[in-house]
Amino acid sequence: MLYADRSLRQIAGDLREGHLTARALMEEATARYRSTEARLNAYKTWAGERAMVHAGAVDTLLASGVDLGPLMGIPVSVKDLFGVPGLPVFAGTDTAFPESWARSGPLVQRLLGQLGVVTGKTHTVEFAFGGLGVNAHWGAPVNPWSAPGAPRAPGGSSSGAGVSLAQGSALVALGTDTAGSVRIPASLTGQVALKNTHGRWSNQGIVPLSPSLDTPGILCRTVEDLAYAFAALDGESDESIQACPLAGLRIGVPQNFFWDEVEPSIADVTEIALRKLEAQGARLVPLELPGCDEVIAVFQLGGLGSLELRDFLNRNFPERIARLDPVVRMRVEGAESVSATEYLRRRAVLAQNGLLARQALEQCDVLATPTVAISAPLLSELEDTESYRRANMMVLRNTAIANLFGWCAMSLPIGLDAHAMPVGLQLIGPPMQERDLLAAGLAVEAALGKATDILGSLPLSN
Amino acid sequence: MLYADRSLRQIAGDLREGHLTARALMEEATARYRSTEARLNAYKTWAGERAMVHAGAVDTLLASGVDLGPLMGIPVSVKDLFGVPGLPVFAGTDTAFPESWARSGPLVQRLLGQLGVVTGKTHTVEFAFGGLGVNAHWGAPVNPWSAPGAPRAPGGSSSGAGVSLAQGSALVALGTDTAGSVRIPASLTGQVALKNTHGRWSNQGIVPLSPSLDTPGILCRTVEDLAYAFAALDGESDESIQACPLAGLRIGVPQNFFWDEVEPSIADVTEIALRKLEAQGARLVPLELPGCDEVIAVFQLGGLGSLELRDFLNRNFPERIARLDPVVRMRVEGAESVSATEYLRRRAVLAQNGLLARQALEQCDVLATPTVAISAPLLSELEDTESYRRANMMVLRNTAIANLFGWCAMSLPIGLDAHAMPVGLQLIGPPMQERDLLAAGLAVEAALGKATDILGSLPLSN
Repeated sequence: MLYADRSLRQIAGDLREGHLTARALMEEATARYRSTEARLNAYKTWAGERAMVHAGAVDTLLASGVDLGPLMGIPVSVKDLFGVPGLPVFAGTDTAFPESWARSGPLVQRLLGQLGVVTGKTHTVEFAFGGLGVNAHWGAPVNPWSAPGAPRAPGGSSSGAGVSLAQGSALVALGTDTAGSVRIPASLTGQVALKNTHGRWSNQGIVPLSPSLDTPGILCRTVEDLAYAFAALDGESDESIQACPLAGLRIGVPQNFFWDEVEPSIADVTEIALRKLEAQGARLVPLELPGCDEVIAVFQLGGLGSLELRDFLNRNFPERIARLDPVVRMRVEGAESVSATEYLRRRAVLAQNGLLARQALEQCDVLATPTVAISAPLLSELEDTESYRRANMMVLRNTAIANLFGWCAMSLPIGLDAHAMPVGLQLIGPPMQERDLLAAGLAVEAALGKATDILGSLPLSN
Repeated sequence: MLYADRSLRQIAGDLREGHLTARALMEEATARYRSTEARLNAYKTWAGERAMVHAGAVDTLLASGVDLGPLMGIPVSVKDLFGVPGLPVFAGTDTAFPESWARSGPLVQRLLGQLGVVTGKTHTVEFAFGGLGVNAHWGAPVNPWSAPGAPRAPGGSSSGAGVSLAQGSALVALGTDTAGSVRIPASLTGQVALKNTHGRWSNQGIVPLSPSLDTPGILCRTVEDLAYAFAALDGESDESIQACPLAGLRIGVPQNFFWDEVEPSIADVTEIALRKLEAQGARLVPLELPGCDEVIAVFQLGGLGSLELRDFLNRNFPERIARLDPVVRMRVEGAESVSATEYLRRRAVLAQNGLLARQALEQCDVLATPTVAISAPLLSELEDTESYRRANMMVLRNTAIANLFGWCAMSLPIGLDAHAMPVGLQLIGPPMQERDLLAAGLAVEAALGKATDILGSLPLSN
């Protein structure tokens, strides 16, 4: 095992100092993929051979002193919603998209420009429209933390992204987040993730779900790696992000909404983590976050996503509507009967409550909540439509708030719940304050420990 | 007559050198208002007394060496859609809005911060939803260029804005432009106007019509004044804007769309102006501007405005819908039957065709078109609903394109048509290039002459 305990920064150093080659990294990633993929099903399209060729090019270039950036030679999996030249785009649907969709947008371009090595395209819920990670066309990836014979949901919609990291086939995963789709899979598979503020990173080159709320995001194994990858991809500043002092950090803990019907063991794990942070100097600020019920009511009606996806399908792929995964189809079928003024009303409710809630956010540096209110459900529990619907709403509820209010947010692992499944802590920050949010996340990780310290090693052989 | 032939820059100099007082300016503005308002009906709310007090304060401050900025002491009329503390907001409706609507947004705040002297609130089409300037509740302002006994439309929706300048009661007029509402009244009353790129100036503190397209804008007597007022209010840079060289300026002249059914004398006046510019070194670039028919088709269906206004009314003033001016009511009444996906389709058509058209725009520095395709109609011709509808679409057609494509645009007078009514030339520039557009406008004005040179003096005594 070459890199499992090494940070991206260390690996990047090793590559440049000749202690490690990009090909060796990719060989290890391939071995991990081969030994687990049949069980885990992380990838729609594995691009291992091509990745090996790219890794070879990286080694040649590095050896001759050419350094293209922090992600050079790092294996990165890409959610199959992003265009990557040369790889097909399915976006979780049953048929490949026309080739023009493989064109890369700015984010993938920034990754490729550094010669980050794309390992393949990871599975997604069809059109990213769901929080559990299931897919009727290609099967759900399996949560690697599941007990043998009892496969659990990986979380979605970036369902393969978290699994690819747990699997060890990639060290960074690109995903997208419209209501929680990088934070939920990170939380359920014991990884970390950052959802950017809407508009910070372009959605160009990514199959849309709800352009008003869609955001590209990143999953990594640790907050340390996440901060490294963010700085590499963001471009606002290449200064590295340092942990802020935990002493005096004002962590707002909403007393309302986020704790309703939370799985008791998840509440306990979260409570213990918060107390640990308090013991190390953080200031816990209990508060009421207004507007949550109002925006979730809009979300439960179908929000903006069902309407914006239906519009996209009408204009681009009307013939695919009848073939949609039933859990997606049921939500876009009702869309045609919603009026324009209802759509505009929903937008207004989000904007107004976002402003209102923002005032509460000002009382602290970050908010902390359980990322997901329930344990990763058994896949068998999701076969019934009504159960699916209920579970889907429960996994999305706590994360969706950050999207609906227009904020940035992240998730990091803090323990295992009563089902021995990972529990995530969600940290939420104000719009465009990703660097401050990551600085707080680094402080929390330094205080609580990294994923492997907290969760133990994943028994990948089972 | 103290200031009729002096530019804002000269007047500002005179005020600071003690050759002129703000009170004297305001006295002249008041005299002009008194002698013409009964006939012209520019203002919903005249605030002459208060303005005189403010002018006195300006004189006191200037005399003691306090200079608050370029618009200090300048009489400015404000469209009755903007909040101005202490003055009621009607927005063209039959009843004053709740007092909270009088709060100033950033633009009015910038004006007041320089102690620009607000002369009053000018008439508007109800909710700014129309291009001709009529208003069933308060009557239409009268175009000052009308022949005696044959009143013509002032253009709208900033219907009182152009009239207030022609009247001489103000030297700058604030208006708004969603489809042409500063350029049309400027064109029809012999003034100049600038419509900013959407998003350049905040719409906060302004009653909305269509937030996706609404823009605050300025009307003035000359391009020279317009550039001065823009620099004073914009804040991007306080550097003054200079005319660009006319020699080599690439003026794109769309051969399609803008000339369809244009009043022949307007076509002639425009053609002559363009030839004069060419004779002085400008390069005329004939071109096809794609996408115009597609976006106008959306506009004719009610565009975004009918839906966004209906949403605003539903949420804020549902009880006012039944009392709307019939020409406004007929367009919001149908809105409830339009679906969310149709709204989103319309947005997509605008965005896609805007990108397409942008490529044609790249071939030149500015586009030039007739601002308005028809002569200012007689008010008597607009009483019939069908005639109103047809005329409204014709006056808005050429200006709406810049809004629908997301560009900036201006209008300046270039002559009189067969009805002895002013003709405007529209110059259109790429998004956020207002300073370049005004630099081109200054060059055109320098080549063709200012309004009074071109149109002659307005016989205000008739």
